[in-house]
Amino acid sequence: MVCEHTSTRRIEFSETDMAGLVHFSNFFRYMETAERDFFEAAGIDLINSKPGELVGWPRARAECKFSAPLRFGDTINIHIAVKALKDRSIDYQFRIYRCNPDGSLTQAGKGHMTTVLTELTSNGKLRSIPLPESVRSKINEAPAVVLARREPV
Amino acid sequence: MVCEHTSTRRIEFSETDMAGLVHFSNFFRYMETAERDFFEAAGIDLINSKPGELVGWPRARAECKFSAPLRFGDTINIHIAVKALKDRSIDYQFRIYRCNPDGSLTQAGKGHMTTVLTELTSNGKLRSIPLPESVRSKINEAPAVVLARREPV
Amino acid sequence: MVCEHTSTRRIEFSETDMAGLVHFSNFFRYMETAERDFFEAAGIDLINSKPGELVGWPRARAECKFSAPLRFGDTINIHIAVKALKDRSIDYQFRIYRCNPDGSLTQAGKGHMTTVLTELTSNGKLRSIPLPESVRSKINEAPAVVLARREPV
Amino acid sequence: MVCEHTSTRRIEFSETDMAGLVHFSNFFRYMETAERDFFEAAGIDLINSKPGELVGWPRARAECKFSAPLRFGDTINIHIAVKALKDRSIDYQFRIYRCNPDGSLTQAGKGHMTTVLTELTSNGKLRSIPLPESVRSKINEAPAVVLARREPV
Repeated sequence: MVCEHTSTRRIEFSETDMAGLVHFSNFFRYMETAERDFFEAAGIDLINSKPGELVGWPRARAECKFSAPLRFGDTINIHIAVKALKDRSIDYQFRIYRCNPDGSLTQAGKGHMTTVLTELTSNGKLRSIPLPESVRSKINEAPAVVLARREPV
Repeated sequence: MVCEHTSTRRIEFSETDMAGLVHFSNFFRYMETAERDFFEAAGIDLINSKPGELVGWPRARAECKFSAPLRFGDTINIHIAVKALKDRSIDYQFRIYRCNPDGSLTQAGKGHMTTVLTELTSNGKLRSIPLPESVRSKINEAPAVVLARREPV
Repeated sequence: MVCEHTSTRRIEFSETDMAGLVHFSNFFRYMETAERDFFEAAGIDLINSKPGELVGWPRARAECKFSAPLRFGDTINIHIAVKALKDRSIDYQFRIYRCNPDGSLTQAGKGHMTTVLTELTSNGKLRSIPLPESVRSKINEAPAVVLARREPV
Repeated sequence: MVCEHTSTRRIEFSETDMAGLVHFSNFFRYMETAERDFFEAAGIDLINSKPGELVGWPRARAECKFSAPLRFGDTINIHIAVKALKDRSIDYQFRIYRCNPDGSLTQAGKGHMTTVLTELTSNGKLRSIPLPESVRSKINEAPAVVLARREPV
């Protein structure tokens, strides 16, 4: 059972904007990277395909508070934790940290995402479906102490 | 005095993802398009430059609820309204509508963004500054009836 | 029969990078916008779906020469012309112009793209297919005078 | 002296498009990742700042041939080699390989990029400048055998 995960990546030049900082929309893409790594760590296929059906995780809501800028070349840690495991959806909490040259970490963002397990039906509509046992058996909600943890990870 | 604006654009192929839908991070970029058009309609330079200083509007918070998918080729309306005009920041409300072939509109997303007027100081730090009169004199808070309006625009 | 088209769009803040200019990768996305508009002008569905099959236009080659920078807020014209209509592919030529405040146009880029009509087979492989009559009857190769035209469009 | 480098990264969900494959424009962003890592391996600051001036490497030309699709979750190797070291510019050759589950590599793309050392003058114009000794002393042109190497790296 896995309830949290930390991914690491570098900031790309193409992720900056003319203000010299990472464009804020990319924080949401960083969250998605951590989600993929979390699913891999849990042994879950993020994208399952049933014959003739695509099953995915569209987002119902995404939110981020930005507390420090990120710049080209920065290394970041992206921490994901399961905030709530619901019948057909998962609420995640994210924290994004800039890894400073002196080894310290600065929190650059804190986010939340609600993602709904969904199948694409044959008429092109999206329909939410219950989380299967293959997902429920591998991940669990993070304890409050993890969600409220103040020190970076 | 301007308090709301509606922008229109098409969905690009490069904005879709392998689920066949617009990647959710692009909703935040659509909001930014409406913000630029709103500032232009109000007669405000979004990006001012003082000698040796870049003044911009980094985001303190961004949030979106997703209620209907967008697909390649869709035309969308992006409605922006000023929710709160604060000393050093602006809160916006966004609504994104898909323009259907029959002329009806389907709400695809509702978002909020808080953006802070900021200068980049000579040592590379960001520092918030009060909204100047040249901004305050051109935009105002949208009345409650605009923010709560149920019918699409 | 259509052999060329010009699209117009604005440069978004999110398309710039920390050098203050449009990131070069976005020139290729602008080309794609012109391709969509060209297909629409010709009355061709860019993305056809046969039952159980996705038919698309993956790129075999893309190239761009950059001659002038583009900046946030610029309006650009993107001119597309059919350079060669082949059995299973199309070669396009692109020219991207910045629309200056005085009404003049500055060429910012010149590109080429080769795109192959392709179906996704049931085992996940890509397979090129001949251009159908529904495409061949609607577009044709641009005459040399169009391809070599020196004045902006 | 360094003349080549290989970077490794994963394909992100946000880099795919509705065809289920990596959007072709992202191949150019992958090249840029390898360029950054190459400069780091050589001990060169990619972005130098002189007081009041930004020095960067805008692209004069970029090109890619696409030979195999990339998909979400793939691991790729991006090989960069210096093809020509000129007075004010560098020509790079890129090869992008998909790392297959069996350990083999499939070439997904081959690209070239010409990048010009440029300063942003005080009036906002771009001006090319000669490569400084601090760059010339750290990188050199790859021998023909490296550029023509057939086996993946």
